[in-house]
Amino acid sequence: MQPVHNPQRIVVVGAGFGGMQAAQSLAHSGAEVCLIDRHNYNTFVPLLYQVAAAQLEPESIAYPLRTVLRRAPRTRFLMAEVQRIDFEHQVVETDKAVISYDYLVMATGSQTQFLGVPGAEDFAFPLQTLDHAIALRNHILQRFEQVVQEHDPVQRQQLLTFVIVGGGPTGVEMAGTLVELKRSLRHDYPTLNWSQMRIVLVQSGDNLLVNLPNRLGHYTTRKLRQLGINVYFKTRVRRVTEQAVEFSDGSTLPTGTVVWAAGLEAALPDVTAPLTTARKHKLKVRPTLQLIDHDNVYAIGDLAYTQQHGKPLAGVAPEALQQGVAVAHNLRRQLRGKSPKPFSYFNKGRLAIIGVYAGVGKIGPFLLTGFLPWLLWLSVHLVYLPGFRNRLMVLLNWLQGYIRGDRAIRIILSSNSAKDRIQLSKHKTPISS
Amino acid sequence: MQPVHNPQRIVVVGAGFGGMQAAQSLAHSGAEVCLIDRHNYNTFVPLLYQVAAAQLEPESIAYPLRTVLRRAPRTRFLMAEVQRIDFEHQVVETDKAVISYDYLVMATGSQTQFLGVPGAEDFAFPLQTLDHAIALRNHILQRFEQVVQEHDPVQRQQLLTFVIVGGGPTGVEMAGTLVELKRSLRHDYPTLNWSQMRIVLVQSGDNLLVNLPNRLGHYTTRKLRQLGINVYFKTRVRRVTEQAVEFSDGSTLPTGTVVWAAGLEAALPDVTAPLTTARKHKLKVRPTLQLIDHDNVYAIGDLAYTQQHGKPLAGVAPEALQQGVAVAHNLRRQLRGKSPKPFSYFNKGRLAIIGVYAGVGKIGPFLLTGFLPWLLWLSVHLVYLPGFRNRLMVLLNWLQGYIRGDRAIRIILSSNSAKDRIQLSKHKTPISS
Repeated sequence: MQPVHNPQRIVVVGAGFGGMQAAQSLAHSGAEVCLIDRHNYNTFVPLLYQVAAAQLEPESIAYPLRTVLRRAPRTRFLMAEVQRIDFEHQVVETDKAVISYDYLVMATGSQTQFLGVPGAEDFAFPLQTLDHAIALRNHILQRFEQVVQEHDPVQRQQLLTFVIVGGGPTGVEMAGTLVELKRSLRHDYPTLNWSQMRIVLVQSGDNLLVNLPNRLGHYTTRKLRQLGINVYFKTRVRRVTEQAVEFSDGSTLPTGTVVWAAGLEAALPDVTAPLTTARKHKLKVRPTLQLIDHDNVYAIGDLAYTQQHGKPLAGVAPEALQQGVAVAHNLRRQLRGKSPKPFSYFNKGRLAIIGVYAGVGKIGPFLLTGFLPWLLWLSVHLVYLPGFRNRLMVLLNWLQGYIRGDRAIRIILSSNSAKDRIQLSKHKTPISS
Repeated sequence: MQPVHNPQRIVVVGAGFGGMQAAQSLAHSGAEVCLIDRHNYNTFVPLLYQVAAAQLEPESIAYPLRTVLRRAPRTRFLMAEVQRIDFEHQVVETDKAVISYDYLVMATGSQTQFLGVPGAEDFAFPLQTLDHAIALRNHILQRFEQVVQEHDPVQRQQLLTFVIVGGGPTGVEMAGTLVELKRSLRHDYPTLNWSQMRIVLVQSGDNLLVNLPNRLGHYTTRKLRQLGINVYFKTRVRRVTEQAVEFSDGSTLPTGTVVWAAGLEAALPDVTAPLTTARKHKLKVRPTLQLIDHDNVYAIGDLAYTQQHGKPLAGVAPEALQQGVAVAHNLRRQLRGKSPKPFSYFNKGRLAIIGVYAGVGKIGPFLLTGFLPWLLWLSVHLVYLPGFRNRLMVLLNWLQGYIRGDRAIRIILSSNSAKDRIQLSKHKTPISS
């Protein structure tokens, strides 16, 4: 397998949409490729909220990276945590090994930003990884088991209050899917007073889904309110405790569950030399996606700050995928001694799902609302989900969920995070005697 | 919903095969039934080893108990940990509530017995619950990721050595499925020297599957040895450490994974008055399955010591299921003022799966070996698996696994047990520079 001349080595750090795509597109480039990720699977992030809402198995939206790379014989995978990148010596230091590179693709994505809100990191649930989704699922299902054992009406109200912070796509999806979850759990808890269940969506601005045209945000707000969700605008969360959230107007809402869907920042690894960054720690890149200061280093996806027509890109999956392809293309050019070409994003449209058979979208000049964008959202994500088996599993779950109104994955696994163990009330109540 | 006369209350503790069946069979008995379990799902224990071997999603073999009870309007479910049973005051004390009963069915099953072997509890993996299976899956898959990063041949051999303690059905299944896993992982680790992988099955006696006729144990031994598994007879494990197992003959085998499939004991809850027990803390019961000392308390499944034709029952699922039906029948008789009837087990046959298209079985006077009992084992368990959706999911996974030789669920989720975090080697090796 060893070629006569020394092959160039390309290291790709991060196996999200951008990094995985880059590694795949580099398969037959002649270079030796090393893909590094802390997990041995790619997470299909758009469907995380469905794992959190007990609609999909975690395994259905995770795809083993070694399977992705089976058809790329000169690419290897390293499961490791990146600790530092040394641009001078051209090495990536991980907890498992030190990997040298000739070219580097940085694709480490984003991480939850708690915006300095006290208690948020300790008591609110982020939704960025599969582990987050499983922890949130366990927590939500546990709340219903607790509420049927609770006799104090105040405590019951607290357990049945779900607060979602952030009115972007994740916040809207979570709010909508909780309504769906409520409907399917009704059969399981016939004695529960479901009118007590309260879903609150908190947004700092005055509209939802601000990356889409205003009209779609207004539709989304109306739709969520019709579904019984309280949408609070111009409200910030000032503090999160085990028992409540405090809002910027000074009011306090007792709640047992806070989902944190407000704000992401670039997950920039430690580097030896300072890099030029833009807002939210994103790396400034040239139009070719190369770093400002390093010809042989690229940054893509949520880690990179890129503009198109003078406006920053929105941070969605198609952008990262197209950047993955572009960066592979540019690397092939560099390997042949040619200069890289500027990246240009081709926007096929934007969709967002609300839930309960409604969504919104913008395709070309057309604004869509209601059932059609909902169906389109599901279809597009089913097509893009990696792996035939996963697609089949997800489709079967959706047929059961959306047609029969049932969801089968209501399993509370043992806690895999300290947050699971938080209990609102620990006193014993004889529920009957 | 409240009847004119006060209904009798039956409490069922434990929702395994026996307890869940008892609760279901009591659905329209006129009594108020309360089913208590620490989990909100029933675990289909026979398929746990397939979860551990990355062949099935955990959710596919777990069935939500509230779904089971949907058609039983007078039965309620309490997710709680039983702390003590007070026979005098007729109450079950849990961590959530104190429940009084008129009649009690004890069905708390069995738990792993580490037989006093030092280190076994800390370093060996039991396989009794869904959490165990997930922890073992994470651990096994992690081993392969570690071995490709390891350059020391001694450490590699250790990481690729899998020791299974116990030659009963679970031990045999685990040994066989590791061979299947090895075959499907080959595509994923093309550079790995698979001939180094070593599977060792340790048995204290001189045959495997001792609850079946000797000839079937001999066939199983030959089959496992053909598959390259080392079967050690008349060997006991004296100590388990992070790095090795020590055998009774004084020898030490370096290993990174020890599966503990040796020995179960009854999981008897704390009780206020001493009960008459047989071997392994099992409760002695009358032929009617009532406790010796309490007319209104029954014990079934692995918790009960029952004999048929002078021999103790084997502790398999069909026994527990039939006892669940029988106990419900006897309770209905008691509610009507009649006396309970003796339980008699109807043995339809016994099957055990080895893996790699082989199994063994005894049906009536016929001993079966090879492909037929393998197929029968899978078919029977598919039919008995609760829930149409789960059956479909399992069937699809089996088709992919047994026909295409692939298994898709090779996902290492974050550790949910301290054992996952054990690392054999922590030094950094530059894997290339």
